[in-house]
Amino acid sequence: MTIPEVVSRDEAATLSPRELREVIASGRWTTPTWSLALGYLQANLVILPEKDAFEFLTFCTRNSKPCPIVEVGEPGSPTVGPVAPGADLRTDIPKYRVFRDGEQEDEPTDITSYWRDDLVGFLLGCSLTFEEALLDAGVPLRHLEAGTIAPMYETDRACRPAGKFSGNMVVSMRMIPADLVPRAVQVTSRYPLAHGAPVHVGSPDELGIRDLGEVDFGDQPVAEPGDVPVFWGCGVTPQIVARSARPEIMIAHYPGCMFITDRRSEIDAAL
Amino acid sequence: MTIPEVVSRDEAATLSPRELREVIASGRWTTPTWSLALGYLQANLVILPEKDAFEFLTFCTRNSKPCPIVEVGEPGSPTVGPVAPGADLRTDIPKYRVFRDGEQEDEPTDITSYWRDDLVGFLLGCSLTFEEALLDAGVPLRHLEAGTIAPMYETDRACRPAGKFSGNMVVSMRMIPADLVPRAVQVTSRYPLAHGAPVHVGSPDELGIRDLGEVDFGDQPVAEPGDVPVFWGCGVTPQIVARSARPEIMIAHYPGCMFITDRRSEIDAAL
Repeated sequence: MTIPEVVSRDEAATLSPRELREVIASGRWTTPTWSLALGYLQANLVILPEKDAFEFLTFCTRNSKPCPIVEVGEPGSPTVGPVAPGADLRTDIPKYRVFRDGEQEDEPTDITSYWRDDLVGFLLGCSLTFEEALLDAGVPLRHLEAGTIAPMYETDRACRPAGKFSGNMVVSMRMIPADLVPRAVQVTSRYPLAHGAPVHVGSPDELGIRDLGEVDFGDQPVAEPGDVPVFWGCGVTPQIVARSARPEIMIAHYPGCMFITDRRSEIDAAL
Repeated sequence: MTIPEVVSRDEAATLSPRELREVIASGRWTTPTWSLALGYLQANLVILPEKDAFEFLTFCTRNSKPCPIVEVGEPGSPTVGPVAPGADLRTDIPKYRVFRDGEQEDEPTDITSYWRDDLVGFLLGCSLTFEEALLDAGVPLRHLEAGTIAPMYETDRACRPAGKFSGNMVVSMRMIPADLVPRAVQVTSRYPLAHGAPVHVGSPDELGIRDLGEVDFGDQPVAEPGDVPVFWGCGVTPQIVARSARPEIMIAHYPGCMFITDRRSEIDAAL
């Protein structure tokens, strides 16, 4: 296959998941993946040593709203199976973050030099999938209209721990018109691999969020009169939890720079 | 709490999950758990050494239709967390099977003497939950009317392997009136922890099943004119796969003798 020379966002948006991964692997796309490969599942990445893998997978199983498992790799293998045949976790993400003992060490666009025979890759669902579905269903997304990223908050809700992995759930928040809240619940319920239904509607106080203006990640909230804050489990949770456990090495995607799979989002919805 | 002295099926059917587990732990109920604790999730049990736990959990993650994960225990702990507070995996199942290197060694009603600090318990979803839901939705179940167990077949569909764990998917089959097949799909789709939607409707040949009369597990099929065979992923799959891997030790529930949780089945449906 000829790798396209162009990497403008408009042209990238016309490429298939496989073509996009090739462009990304070639080093000619190092920015966030929103608006790319619409209709296909994108995923968060966490890579950990095999000795931490069972505890981390147990953690994800126990906290499937913020940590839906899309794929678990074989120890030592940078491939990800049928969700993206031919893909290579070491090169196919635009930008990575490498942590040693919980401290960030590097932000490379290729992690081939960090790869080891005992590393295990985890792909976890992300919210890009359900945002598309919400728009298709006529639910407006204020942060997209404003060209910003949805605000994210660390709540006071403890995840169920597993071994060394523990921490509070992080949620993403979208302001939804009150009459469309039921539809937003219905639509996102159909995408369990993209965090599924909201975990909370209204009452930020109950999640330990005293001021919606004090965001922990992402941008300031954008609201219209009559909007209600709706909260979903957020894929930042497993990254923070994994990092807090201070594993000897951990590699994650750079925020917004997701792994693009070959799986149609709608397959998730139909399972 | 006073443990009831009675153990007739009619009286047992009036007990709560916690009360039932206490009766079972006392040794006064050693038979299958169908008809008990209606409305509550029941689960298959697989216990394996910690060294096999990551591979087995990865296998279940990759094959969630036959192997839906209800709970993963901590290594060495016979408890199962919030799905059944106070429960003990060593005593709270009516009857067990113990395998050494894949060969059955014992069929005890208590596995306390087999427990070790490195054992990990896995609870996997079972079909009792969705059978209740089908009946509630007006879908007749021929095998129940005939007082038999649904037939199960080993298919020629390979599960996605994980390390030493591999094998073909086992399915359970129910003959459903043709006009109720859509409803059967809709109803069971709502219970992903109980195998979810069917994996196949009609055409047993396509699953490698040449003769529905040649059942691998369970009883002969029961059909009425106009019925269509509908196939669901079956919880026998993980047991066969685990046993085939010949782990040094593996403990499972005795067929039909399930673990009864405190979780309402409908909570699964709403997730």
